[in-house]
Amino acid sequence: MDSKHTFTCTLSSGTNIACIKYWGKKSVALNTPINSSVSVTLDQKDLKTVTTVVASKSFEKNRLWLNGTEEDVTNSKRFNACVDGVRRMGGERRGEGKEVLVEKGGWGDYKVHVSSMNTFPTAAGLASSAAGYSALVKCLAEVFCASESYPGELSTIARQGSGSACRSLQGGFVAWRMGSKADGSDSMAEQVCNENHWPEMRAVILVISDLKKDTSSTEGMGTSVDTSELLGFRAREGGVVDRRMELIEKAYKERDFEAFGKVTMQDSNQFHATCLDTYPPIFYMNDTSKSVIKIVHAYNAWKGRVAAAYTFDAGPNAVIYCLDDVVDEVLALMLQYYPGRRLDGRYVRDGEAWGRARGAKLDEGLLRECDKKGRRRGIRGDVKMVYVTKSGPGPIVMDDGESLIDLKTGLNRFKKQRGEVGWGGLTGVGIAVGLAVLFGVGLARRK
Amino acid sequence: MDSKHTFTCTLSSGTNIACIKYWGKKSVALNTPINSSVSVTLDQKDLKTVTTVVASKSFEKNRLWLNGTEEDVTNSKRFNACVDGVRRMGGERRGEGKEVLVEKGGWGDYKVHVSSMNTFPTAAGLASSAAGYSALVKCLAEVFCASESYPGELSTIARQGSGSACRSLQGGFVAWRMGSKADGSDSMAEQVCNENHWPEMRAVILVISDLKKDTSSTEGMGTSVDTSELLGFRAREGGVVDRRMELIEKAYKERDFEAFGKVTMQDSNQFHATCLDTYPPIFYMNDTSKSVIKIVHAYNAWKGRVAAAYTFDAGPNAVIYCLDDVVDEVLALMLQYYPGRRLDGRYVRDGEAWGRARGAKLDEGLLRECDKKGRRRGIRGDVKMVYVTKSGPGPIVMDDGESLIDLKTGLNRFKKQRGEVGWGGLTGVGIAVGLAVLFGVGLARRK
Repeated sequence: MDSKHTFTCTLSSGTNIACIKYWGKKSVALNTPINSSVSVTLDQKDLKTVTTVVASKSFEKNRLWLNGTEEDVTNSKRFNACVDGVRRMGGERRGEGKEVLVEKGGWGDYKVHVSSMNTFPTAAGLASSAAGYSALVKCLAEVFCASESYPGELSTIARQGSGSACRSLQGGFVAWRMGSKADGSDSMAEQVCNENHWPEMRAVILVISDLKKDTSSTEGMGTSVDTSELLGFRAREGGVVDRRMELIEKAYKERDFEAFGKVTMQDSNQFHATCLDTYPPIFYMNDTSKSVIKIVHAYNAWKGRVAAAYTFDAGPNAVIYCLDDVVDEVLALMLQYYPGRRLDGRYVRDGEAWGRARGAKLDEGLLRECDKKGRRRGIRGDVKMVYVTKSGPGPIVMDDGESLIDLKTGLNRFKKQRGEVGWGGLTGVGIAVGLAVLFGVGLARRK
Repeated sequence: MDSKHTFTCTLSSGTNIACIKYWGKKSVALNTPINSSVSVTLDQKDLKTVTTVVASKSFEKNRLWLNGTEEDVTNSKRFNACVDGVRRMGGERRGEGKEVLVEKGGWGDYKVHVSSMNTFPTAAGLASSAAGYSALVKCLAEVFCASESYPGELSTIARQGSGSACRSLQGGFVAWRMGSKADGSDSMAEQVCNENHWPEMRAVILVISDLKKDTSSTEGMGTSVDTSELLGFRAREGGVVDRRMELIEKAYKERDFEAFGKVTMQDSNQFHATCLDTYPPIFYMNDTSKSVIKIVHAYNAWKGRVAAAYTFDAGPNAVIYCLDDVVDEVLALMLQYYPGRRLDGRYVRDGEAWGRARGAKLDEGLLRECDKKGRRRGIRGDVKMVYVTKSGPGPIVMDDGESLIDLKTGLNRFKKQRGEVGWGGLTGVGIAVGLAVLFGVGLARRK
């Protein structure tokens, strides 16, 4: 490699879980949404994508390794939209002695090698594409020294990789404003509150399925836009979503969990309602998901207030938002009803939380109510793994020592090891396929 | 008993299964709906309510036996609305020699004894209340020689017992027009086509649950009206339901199964979508119900047309409409995926249909597609019983020899015998509770 014309960056980015859901594209070509949405960017402790980008004049073509396996990106519209989009924003790059290495706009001859890995199950409804594409775009921006001509410009590129990815470019509570311009240039993310605004916010994640969903988000929302009148009503200007966006942003700013939690649950349910109203209908939640909903409502009824709030993305996994004063109780409650197959602490991906939850005493009246409304206690296996996490920052640049690419050869050096993704139930093949779908590689190929 | 002033009638009435769903009351007091609906009245061969009414001057009070067990109806608003409503419509009654036995309007001194039994599981989403209240009202009308001052007047009384009951007063395809008058007098049933109009129509019913639903229709729709914006949109004037009513009535009249089937499925899904949009959400379908939906869509895709159409009421049970040219195939397909716990012919409540379905050869490609989209073959137990039925007539007057009441004593003589309800999984207590709920007896008592 020509080391003078080779630049690299490695960084990590977190997932985000929407409170007001994005479902439906206004323009498929631009990947703009039919309604605005807002999400909490999650801490990167457990759930993150790590990505290395190396740009070099000596590379023959763009290459991509996903979790150690190379994918052909020649025809990947989404991947190339990100690389080309950020490259066009590329700025002047100077060396340590302040000497100009690459002029502004001088990135045309550079090709990239990218290696990316997830620390969590891919394409199972944990917003893996959000983490993946936000990491890619931010990493490209670092390498190309891209500077925004207006705030949020980078998020308009990430959006073209995967809609929800634009929201992971920032930490805390982040809105994706749908925008109104025909070219999509104002359809971008905006931070409502940073990750320190509401430090008490917690998210308990129940991973219910280890299977890839049978309807991809892109395919599902296309059918929904075409066939669900309820979705059209929900998304119309000044309609349900617009009112909820106002409500929840105010709630988050004022740290009003009651209001935040209620609208979060309502919007999750309404999103899944529009999926059911789609023809043919789409189901993402299963009977286990529904039992979580019933238990959370029973819990709130027992508390006499909205103390926990579930939300479900395009998959059966439950994310339960709550504040830190009840998180031990909420986790303990979930462990009663979803004890997991494993008997050790690895079931809960937060040893401290697990320890505290094990010590928590649950009220017998509460349990009886949940038994009645939710489901029987102690059924193992329906939940595969539990994360206890919180709101976190946007992408974090890492040391070159963490690079997934060998900086001498320019080739991937990351190899998936058994258990490396922190998730025993997923095979290597499953991950490769998952990541391929995530980056639109498989999709592009089939066309 | 004073036999000169004692009159009786015994009749049977069928259930109905809505294609455009009723969900939500405009007036709780009048039991008027927020939207019109339309249903197929089912044949009474397997699924019916049999009711005997005896009216006598010598009775001290109104009495009711449900499946052999007496219930206190003193405070049952719904029961008394029916008895009083029909009594007010009472006409002149003449004897065999044409002599006047009771003058028009001369029924004020009469009290009634009523005995009623179902031949199918109660309150499990098979529209038991429709059969029950239509039988009651029609039977009262026979006894009181009630004549309508306008067509459909009787259905306005049945509606006060249970909304959907008004549609069971007639056979075939029956609409419930929501009406617009403040007193509810034009909120009534109207026959769109009689039961002979489309004799090829079949209904395959999969009884998925033997449990009473955990949210009653009345309670559920109240919460939905209060909290679901999607329901408001669906039901608004000139909205989704109004357009669908037009479409499906035209389809039924023209015997266009494609159009009939598609809108039936869409409306079932939209009804359940509004339940999910309710806060807290209501779930009536379970994972088995959903697998039926997926298998029906896979079947239609394989056929290249809408050849079967599912619909789900307020419960997990599936009703699959199809025409007689495919009913053996549809039943055979269902038996592959829902073989039932019993290995004998009693699982399918139509011996001939079962025999034919057993002989039907299913395409391997179809089965592979259903395996992929729906669920694994051969899982027993999720479906408890299968009915194969068709459209049928409204209430049918029976011979006095079939009376459920001893005409000498005026007391109930029907005793539930083990298996008498054609349904091994339901206990006597379950039935009594179910029927009590059905007639609003338990509810009235608790108040």
